[in-house]
Amino acid sequence: MTQVFDVERVLAQLTLEEKASLTSGSDFWHTQGVERAGVPAVMVTDGPHGLRKQPEEADHLGLGNSVPATCFPTAAALGSSWDVELVTRVGEALGRETRANDVAVLLGPGVNIKRTPLCGRNFEYVSEDPVVAGELGTAIVRGIQSQGVGTSLKHFAANNQESDRMRVSAEVDERTLREVYLPAFERVVKNAQPWTVMCAYNKVNGTYASENHWLLTEILRDEWAFEGLVVSDWGAVHDRVPALAAGLDLQMPAAGPRPDEEVVAAVRDGSLDEAVLDVAARRVLDLIARSLPGIEADDSFDVDAHHELAREAAAAGSVLLKNDGGLLPLASTEGVAVIGEFARTPRYQGAGSSQVNPTRLDSPLDALRAVGELEFAPGFTIAGGPDGDDAALLAGAVEVARGAETVVAFLGLPGPDESEGYDRPRLGLPDNQVAVLRAVAEVNPRVVVVLANGSAVSVTDWRDLAPAILETWLGGQAGGSAVADLLLGVRSPSGKLTETIPHRIEDTPAFGNFPGEAGVVRYGEGVLVGYRWYDTRAVDVAYAFGHGLSYTTFDYSDVTATADGTDVTVTATITNTGSVAGAEVVQVYVRDPEAAVLRPTRELKAFAKVALDPGESRAVAFTLGARDLSYWHPGLHRWVVEGGEFVVEVGASSRDLRGSVSLEIEGEPLWGELTPMSTIEEWLAHPVGGPLLSAALVPPADLGPLDETMQAMIQQMPAKVIADFGLSGFDRETLDTLVAKVAAG
Amino acid sequence: MTQVFDVERVLAQLTLEEKASLTSGSDFWHTQGVERAGVPAVMVTDGPHGLRKQPEEADHLGLGNSVPATCFPTAAALGSSWDVELVTRVGEALGRETRANDVAVLLGPGVNIKRTPLCGRNFEYVSEDPVVAGELGTAIVRGIQSQGVGTSLKHFAANNQESDRMRVSAEVDERTLREVYLPAFERVVKNAQPWTVMCAYNKVNGTYASENHWLLTEILRDEWAFEGLVVSDWGAVHDRVPALAAGLDLQMPAAGPRPDEEVVAAVRDGSLDEAVLDVAARRVLDLIARSLPGIEADDSFDVDAHHELAREAAAAGSVLLKNDGGLLPLASTEGVAVIGEFARTPRYQGAGSSQVNPTRLDSPLDALRAVGELEFAPGFTIAGGPDGDDAALLAGAVEVARGAETVVAFLGLPGPDESEGYDRPRLGLPDNQVAVLRAVAEVNPRVVVVLANGSAVSVTDWRDLAPAILETWLGGQAGGSAVADLLLGVRSPSGKLTETIPHRIEDTPAFGNFPGEAGVVRYGEGVLVGYRWYDTRAVDVAYAFGHGLSYTTFDYSDVTATADGTDVTVTATITNTGSVAGAEVVQVYVRDPEAAVLRPTRELKAFAKVALDPGESRAVAFTLGARDLSYWHPGLHRWVVEGGEFVVEVGASSRDLRGSVSLEIEGEPLWGELTPMSTIEEWLAHPVGGPLLSAALVPPADLGPLDETMQAMIQQMPAKVIADFGLSGFDRETLDTLVAKVAAG
Repeated sequence: MTQVFDVERVLAQLTLEEKASLTSGSDFWHTQGVERAGVPAVMVTDGPHGLRKQPEEADHLGLGNSVPATCFPTAAALGSSWDVELVTRVGEALGRETRANDVAVLLGPGVNIKRTPLCGRNFEYVSEDPVVAGELGTAIVRGIQSQGVGTSLKHFAANNQESDRMRVSAEVDERTLREVYLPAFERVVKNAQPWTVMCAYNKVNGTYASENHWLLTEILRDEWAFEGLVVSDWGAVHDRVPALAAGLDLQMPAAGPRPDEEVVAAVRDGSLDEAVLDVAARRVLDLIARSLPGIEADDSFDVDAHHELAREAAAAGSVLLKNDGGLLPLASTEGVAVIGEFARTPRYQGAGSSQVNPTRLDSPLDALRAVGELEFAPGFTIAGGPDGDDAALLAGAVEVARGAETVVAFLGLPGPDESEGYDRPRLGLPDNQVAVLRAVAEVNPRVVVVLANGSAVSVTDWRDLAPAILETWLGGQAGGSAVADLLLGVRSPSGKLTETIPHRIEDTPAFGNFPGEAGVVRYGEGVLVGYRWYDTRAVDVAYAFGHGLSYTTFDYSDVTATADGTDVTVTATITNTGSVAGAEVVQVYVRDPEAAVLRPTRELKAFAKVALDPGESRAVAFTLGARDLSYWHPGLHRWVVEGGEFVVEVGASSRDLRGSVSLEIEGEPLWGELTPMSTIEEWLAHPVGGPLLSAALVPPADLGPLDETMQAMIQQMPAKVIADFGLSGFDRETLDTLVAKVAAG
Repeated sequence: MTQVFDVERVLAQLTLEEKASLTSGSDFWHTQGVERAGVPAVMVTDGPHGLRKQPEEADHLGLGNSVPATCFPTAAALGSSWDVELVTRVGEALGRETRANDVAVLLGPGVNIKRTPLCGRNFEYVSEDPVVAGELGTAIVRGIQSQGVGTSLKHFAANNQESDRMRVSAEVDERTLREVYLPAFERVVKNAQPWTVMCAYNKVNGTYASENHWLLTEILRDEWAFEGLVVSDWGAVHDRVPALAAGLDLQMPAAGPRPDEEVVAAVRDGSLDEAVLDVAARRVLDLIARSLPGIEADDSFDVDAHHELAREAAAAGSVLLKNDGGLLPLASTEGVAVIGEFARTPRYQGAGSSQVNPTRLDSPLDALRAVGELEFAPGFTIAGGPDGDDAALLAGAVEVARGAETVVAFLGLPGPDESEGYDRPRLGLPDNQVAVLRAVAEVNPRVVVVLANGSAVSVTDWRDLAPAILETWLGGQAGGSAVADLLLGVRSPSGKLTETIPHRIEDTPAFGNFPGEAGVVRYGEGVLVGYRWYDTRAVDVAYAFGHGLSYTTFDYSDVTATADGTDVTVTATITNTGSVAGAEVVQVYVRDPEAAVLRPTRELKAFAKVALDPGESRAVAFTLGARDLSYWHPGLHRWVVEGGEFVVEVGASSRDLRGSVSLEIEGEPLWGELTPMSTIEEWLAHPVGGPLLSAALVPPADLGPLDETMQAMIQQMPAKVIADFGLSGFDRETLDTLVAKVAAG
């Protein structure tokens, strides 16, 4: 058995070649060991929502079979629970399975922001909002790492599409990165210190994430104080020498001897400081050392308990989009017709590196039939068969639906539509499924649609046909039982949307810029991502961010917000006004109606999930700080609270606000350095420069009084141009003197 | 009297100091002369739509009074005529006035693209579309220069807003510049060789236009073969030495001795090649020499004839947006009530450098009263008076409207809303005007709204109140008579929109990015500007690009399109199917349904204005070339015709298409250089690389057959990553060999 070793002692005795070798993998899944120094190789495996540990004989790319593990709901489903406590428990279970399998690091979670619903990997990500992604990402990391195994927070950063992901440059301005694409990573790093962070494949503003010093060192380490190791996404390193210099520690997978040799050569010829290599090698040794106790321990996990937890989580992450006339829950399975191949062949996870080999698999059909008899017709093939097949299947579904009291139609995206490695071709469901729904609804209007898909699908064309729609996302191996629980009212739905469901792809923020051209994707929508886009541009959507119904109803009362400097305390009382137990996700948004930059109409700053029995009330309180009021100032390059009115809104979704409070917040000075190119307006607004300029300004007498138009024009003119035009009574030299005086205070 | 001089002989005898002095102005409006060499100073004056020549005693900024000149319709109105012949005649008249005033260069036209309706200077620009702006810009330059005086094509380039215009950096990708913001300039330069081009104030991708070598030399001279002089916008030069090196020739206005001294010093210390200065000085001398005959000639112009031409142009540029029930034309002035201060105090031009002191001014009210008696009530004050005043004025309008058969309400934007130097605060009309319209419409549903504004205003909130709306833009000094002509049917409206009228500011392409933050404005919408945005994103609009009604109707028949290589001939037959004479603007759009880049749903490529008597038919033909089918390839950095289906659409607006023809066009090869980072898909598509890679690819036997998902994933992976992963059967060295083989052909 391997003994835990002293990292510093080992490091001191390693050769240059050995240190270089530590910064790459030994094969697809293992780090490099140094046998003579007693350093073992450790294993890392894929899987944000379940362990994907491959046996030794697996294929090279590593997408084949893996040892059985619990397939928990994907991040899309887990995130929709908005339940920090539940997600922490899922994390703990994942950690136990990782540890039981002698794996050092589970490669997840993914907290990239869902910029477009077409991103093929959205099912692995939590939300279009950084607070939700950051909070739930923190929960899962804490849960996993509580078991003595590591996580890998990924994919850092701006990996928001699969198209051309290994080359594309995400062109994103700093404010957008700071406000939208980085904060989920920041929150997890600061609050949970993941053992590793995984750098993305793509370039960020022209530089590969794997070689991006600004991201990997200035932001991640200098600003956020990340203490762990930076590992590359598999194949993301193209040149390890600059990658090491930028802050990468470990290249995965193995890439032959060349990169190690290049590192050695670079140290020898002085182009790479050996201290940089030492830092990386030390971090790899640290990771190995901290993972050994877990690997050495003899652990197991409770397969049944984990399956039950997966079931609970799948239920909590399903979102009841509509429920006209209280069609749900069903009283029993009596008179229920189940339609749709997905009822029998569930879609419960996405393709790619996160694909888990489940310990068992519940289908909705089996779970419902376990409760009572019901009719079933597949209605369609998932792949979409030859037309003749489709027609026969459709007729069968209509036949079954005609005689039923209620129809439950299981629709969704075919598996190949959603995968790591490429993006979705369309927003809608396949035509053959919609055709079945139309035909069924014609003979039976009591249709419940149950959706299985990893990211938003358009519902606009057909939602009027279904009085009830339950979005289950990709719910993991127990999703089938969970959906039965929800349909039959064993549990009440309590999930809410972490991503907006738009009407049409043309309405989405990245449309026109996604997936980019010739290796560049422009983030032209800036900070207006997700509901920030829809709300600010007042675009109608099918279902708003934060939306989700329950079998009960909730009342919001006593919404208050009080400020103490930039600390804001928000309270609300939530009451279950219905007849069954349920849970509500209370959301706190902040608006900043006037600012020097365009601010989104509202931004989520806090949330809480509150479980309430019928008639029960509970007061919830939230504390917001300066950061929650701030924007990233693109000129000053820092967070600023711009003084003035702020509005705190408390609601059940971004478009179902139940209370709002206006606050006056004292801000900070926003003026920058004054220069000859500062405008008259900027000069006059400056506490030192204003009086100086006013005293110096002696417009020529022949100019006469200025009308409204002239005044407005001159306000926006740089002082230098006013001087050059002979309008100021001072020349360039005088202006330079004023600039110097202001700089001197 | 000055004699025309020999430029080369003069240049040869000038001192370094004299040559440097030639590259800046002597005052606000004059170039520098060299008296001892017989080189006079010449005068340039503002005015795309009329001469603004200031007397010597005018104010320094140069916005005060000027000598009387015909105020022709602004570019917004002139452009809406889509009438090349008419605009050429207006140009000729402008040229005559310039020459008669001994002015060398008239500083116009402006062909910047209308990126947002809020740009304060839109009234000086032609269109949101580069073909319309380029064609009409060409016409006006040809017209003016036919009189032996010069023009200044402005503001080059990407000056699409007034906010922070003297500093802001327009961040625009190359494809967007090439396809949207540069082609109008390109067309005018290539077709009409303006004597001068004026560089813009703003930065383009971080570099001031005045110092932008790529714009001023590589694009303008090397690619487009511009032969004239580049003059700065007034105050746009911050450092003349790099500006000269970049391709600027003349800094305006005078800026004191320092810049001249800096040029001399730079030549002396070798940091500026004297040959560069010689080129600029030669161009200034050329300009002076070519303008002297016109200045020396003893010319005058026919004030009455020019006023009549201004009237014709104003009528031709007005757009009849709606005319429900044929409310227009009015049979007579009998029973007509005129409402609105604008009827008496017309808005006919915008503020800033283009402001002309008109030779006379027709108000709509006077023009209508010259035809017959009618009632008038001002209804509102343009500035928006104290509430009490507004109420009384509104009551007066309602009173007059109540008794009338038809109400004509003159609404519009107050003057200070639209000016050079700052942008519009809102899309809508002032509330007090809309209130008057609502009150009037309540007592009399037969309301004609006549609009006066320099760029699109929102009509959505109130258009249902008015069966007829006539948009007259800012129609110049004879706009009052022109609108009377149109209202009474003396002329039939024939203008069409050169800019879309959107419903809401949130729907506009630049919303969220305009006016930018901290000195940077991101052109996040890329090529989707104007109707390219609305049509591609399927956004509902109030009135589409190209829309405009007539008092008659037009039928389109025999729409054909045939291709010979990349030359496409388009024909259509237009018939006047109504009972009065009229003119139709026939528009030819091209679609490219599938391409490697996102192409706008449709793009205007040609147009023609066809005047027809009742019952008359005429066949029109258009010739399109390769450029009309091309896009700018962002990777290959050149125009490409991507082969495949193209659709030619002929219509009366971008949303009123009357015929379409699908064509198969043979394209050109689009593959770039193959590298180790080229994807498997790119390798396999390459005529040389494809077979080479296929032969080398020997996937490991244990990989087994690949499913659909895996295949799709691998297609998008770079060959290098496949090799690193051990999936290809070849290593990096082999791949490098393949790359070399492909490069060798």
